[in-house]
Amino acid sequence: MKILLAQLNYQIGNIKDNTQKILSTIEQYGNDADLIVFSELCITGYYPRDLLYQRSLIEQQNEAIEQIKAMTTRFSAGVVIGYVDINPGIGKPYFNALGLIDSGTLIYRYSKQLLPVYNIFDEARHFEPGTEAGVFDYKGETLGFLICEDAWENKDNPLYSKNPIDGIKNANVDLIVSINASPSNTGKQSERFELIKKIATDCSAPVAYVNQVGGCDDIIFDGGSIVIGTLGECLSQGQYFSEDTVWFDSKNSTVISSPVFLSKMELISQQLKLGLADYCQKTGFDSAVVGCSGGIDSAVTIALAVSVFGADKVQAITMPSQFSSEGSWTDSEELCANLGINLVNYPIKEQFEHDCAEFETKFGERPSGLTQENLQARSRAKILMAYSNNYGNLVLSTGNKSEMSVGYCTLGGDMMGGLSVLGDLYKMEVYEYARFLNKVVFEREVIPSAIIDKEPSAELSPDQKDSDSLPTYSILDAILHLYIEEDYLTNKEKEQYEVTLKNVSMAVVTKVKKMVRKAEYKRQQAAPVLRVHPRAFGIGRQIPLCSA
Amino acid sequence: MKILLAQLNYQIGNIKDNTQKILSTIEQYGNDADLIVFSELCITGYYPRDLLYQRSLIEQQNEAIEQIKAMTTRFSAGVVIGYVDINPGIGKPYFNALGLIDSGTLIYRYSKQLLPVYNIFDEARHFEPGTEAGVFDYKGETLGFLICEDAWENKDNPLYSKNPIDGIKNANVDLIVSINASPSNTGKQSERFELIKKIATDCSAPVAYVNQVGGCDDIIFDGGSIVIGTLGECLSQGQYFSEDTVWFDSKNSTVISSPVFLSKMELISQQLKLGLADYCQKTGFDSAVVGCSGGIDSAVTIALAVSVFGADKVQAITMPSQFSSEGSWTDSEELCANLGINLVNYPIKEQFEHDCAEFETKFGERPSGLTQENLQARSRAKILMAYSNNYGNLVLSTGNKSEMSVGYCTLGGDMMGGLSVLGDLYKMEVYEYARFLNKVVFEREVIPSAIIDKEPSAELSPDQKDSDSLPTYSILDAILHLYIEEDYLTNKEKEQYEVTLKNVSMAVVTKVKKMVRKAEYKRQQAAPVLRVHPRAFGIGRQIPLCSA
Repeated sequence: MKILLAQLNYQIGNIKDNTQKILSTIEQYGNDADLIVFSELCITGYYPRDLLYQRSLIEQQNEAIEQIKAMTTRFSAGVVIGYVDINPGIGKPYFNALGLIDSGTLIYRYSKQLLPVYNIFDEARHFEPGTEAGVFDYKGETLGFLICEDAWENKDNPLYSKNPIDGIKNANVDLIVSINASPSNTGKQSERFELIKKIATDCSAPVAYVNQVGGCDDIIFDGGSIVIGTLGECLSQGQYFSEDTVWFDSKNSTVISSPVFLSKMELISQQLKLGLADYCQKTGFDSAVVGCSGGIDSAVTIALAVSVFGADKVQAITMPSQFSSEGSWTDSEELCANLGINLVNYPIKEQFEHDCAEFETKFGERPSGLTQENLQARSRAKILMAYSNNYGNLVLSTGNKSEMSVGYCTLGGDMMGGLSVLGDLYKMEVYEYARFLNKVVFEREVIPSAIIDKEPSAELSPDQKDSDSLPTYSILDAILHLYIEEDYLTNKEKEQYEVTLKNVSMAVVTKVKKMVRKAEYKRQQAAPVLRVHPRAFGIGRQIPLCSA
Repeated sequence: MKILLAQLNYQIGNIKDNTQKILSTIEQYGNDADLIVFSELCITGYYPRDLLYQRSLIEQQNEAIEQIKAMTTRFSAGVVIGYVDINPGIGKPYFNALGLIDSGTLIYRYSKQLLPVYNIFDEARHFEPGTEAGVFDYKGETLGFLICEDAWENKDNPLYSKNPIDGIKNANVDLIVSINASPSNTGKQSERFELIKKIATDCSAPVAYVNQVGGCDDIIFDGGSIVIGTLGECLSQGQYFSEDTVWFDSKNSTVISSPVFLSKMELISQQLKLGLADYCQKTGFDSAVVGCSGGIDSAVTIALAVSVFGADKVQAITMPSQFSSEGSWTDSEELCANLGINLVNYPIKEQFEHDCAEFETKFGERPSGLTQENLQARSRAKILMAYSNNYGNLVLSTGNKSEMSVGYCTLGGDMMGGLSVLGDLYKMEVYEYARFLNKVVFEREVIPSAIIDKEPSAELSPDQKDSDSLPTYSILDAILHLYIEEDYLTNKEKEQYEVTLKNVSMAVVTKVKKMVRKAEYKRQQAAPVLRVHPRAFGIGRQIPLCSA
């Protein structure tokens, strides 16, 4: 059987465009393939969340299915789609379903049996689980069907009371078709490969695994659709982070020497670029404005934005106060010259003096040090947002995960923006990524070494250094990894961070944990943070503010 | 059997203080009652969300259970607690459990069978459902046990594949004990009463229903614990919105003439007051600062804050620009004089002119009208936040649900704050509540009639009126009710809003819906909004930003 895995980038709720992509694919390949496989919830896009409650969305989807059915009458290929099926019985209103359409008819349907409700997933909110194994004879072969999480019970630590793989294994299927919407994060590609490999070898059947690609708010899907044979060999593989068509002929397949896994930095780079590009494209922005402090975070954000939008679509604004160093201007200037982008110098010194003086007039005393620091950050936010209001550029906030975790940031100040690009990168990763941008993405030093090498400082008070308030970043990051991501770390990672912390006192660790808990209220008002790590902020981390 | 329902206010994660409340209650009443019943997850507080992943929390809870056990050895009463029980088997790590402790021993345990995953609930994220009915013989009586959602399947539209009431009904129990953490919203009290009444009559057994009380972030629990007899009669009832002890003697009970339900305005008033008080108490604030525009929203917010904190703990700041009317000062002055609070006049006219001039210098043109409006809102936010940073008062944002729904508000401007007090009240409800504050809460005109009667205006551009951009509020509110709360409205409510919209064109309705969808990104960065309506914003409404 000749199979085509269609790895496409959908927009949630955009039934019209999503369907058009599906129809075009059928039109193009409908006589070359025996089976064209689209990904999980391909018509609505994954995951529609509470848009699922809007009946009109389901009605539109069902009309789209009729169009797809009609299209299949003109071609020999069967078509597998993922769709929202109405549950006529008791329970949640829908099933997360897979349909096989042939010559205008839905000849088989299957409902996802395992509904993930953890981390960023919440499918039991809208769906009822299926109860039947996904097995069907088609074109002379017995096919097994899985929908995403159905495959993930096949691990050492069972989470569900059944394993959909068992039903497929017992049926001695010839081929397993798995449709997915599997988000990307560090470590996921090899984890996913090992999982599918185990299924292929356990069931003695090749697994054809199709994933969607593209960004949706903070969640980014990496594609990387793959076919794995019964010996665990890679038989076909799609691109990461772009649309692709992946072919597999069960009668005539050749082994790829080894599957491609992106390096951590390559993954982060491609993930952030696609996440930023898709967020903007899907919400209607094509340009960005970023505050340029001369520090590492804003430099990386700006370079990344240029790699996505092009130099003419990125506006940098430097807004020095009396506490800004000489370098904050010269380094910013060099950065922007290297990237070929416009830099406006918009000092806030006068405004800041005016704010402090007026505060004193009204309240009888000069604002405290902390108040002064936040005043500067909020003056800058006001300028960036005014630019955005006036010219339509999206404000990118520049904070990293280390700062945001401990609240070393200002609500309505540097946290302000439409999207937080680096908010899931620890500070040490931001440095690593800066070097990667220079070496791999731009292949020249766009981020000046002066920016990479300078000691981190918020420059909000005289001679301030980050290390005045925080442990050094290598230590801070190790504490944060262990505290925030605990359950999502491998043993090797845990050991590595524990080694870093060997000589660090418990008092420091406890202080950092307290800072994280206290900063929760800020983070819950942050712009969406592009997700990179298995356990990021956003919907994957839910902490009550009022807790002790 | 003499039963005491302990309706207490817990802080999530504060095992020490929560346990102390439980122990004190046992100490005080342990020889007067045969059974003391605490509410769902009483030791951790409901709902701990992802704090449940922290093993130390569960360890602390289990130590607390040992303390409670030890305490029961000194008294004759049995004690019912709600707690997080470890699941030793496959699946989610915990059960949401009920334990009956007698003389130092846990003699019975029951696991919640129905785990709500809808609206603001997400219990399947952490808990595995129980499978056994809750029935146990104690002190010569057969008791039936329910945990919150277990009772809610007893409706016309089944959501689960089983109904825990059946198991209790079949066991012919003498008394049903239901432990709850049931959040309050408009319409809930009578809905809850009807539900319990149906269980009591269906099972021919009185239901003793205990609820927790208190605010947790945006969610507020109203208490109102109640005992309902087999004829649906009310046998005992606790206070709403305060801690209380509710007694019931199964051998010797008298009928209360009729159960108390708060009127809509009384409910809203008490709910917002407790929500504000608890948010501050549990996050460490005891004072507020509010921008005072002379409009209805800020007037109501300020009056409410005074009713919670007292006049000396509320700072009002009026920040007129050149577009502010004469009344914005005089009305603010009158309001604050009536309430006996301090009002600072902090004009932003000069700062605004400076911002516009500097923008023009830097970018070659005067900022657009929209940019100018947002500049003013953000200047005001900067002043309020500076006050907060300096003096520790919590900034209360003043926007209402109508404005916030359609994005008639500024991110980092009037939306800025630690808590949104009126964000779940539609504009028409804010008016109604203003009158209620005068008449019932303060029993005098603290909010001047000039403020209640003036035409709504943001006063951000010359002679601006809300009606320039929005339909009149009675129409806007009707559209919003139908669009946002659709599934949560009664048929009567739906009809009422449809009558209001009888002569409104579809174009207006479509425009408003589009505004709501477009404003989603702002709302997801808003401060927590005290929840009042069944379907509020916050975790009860989950919409992807990148959707079409």
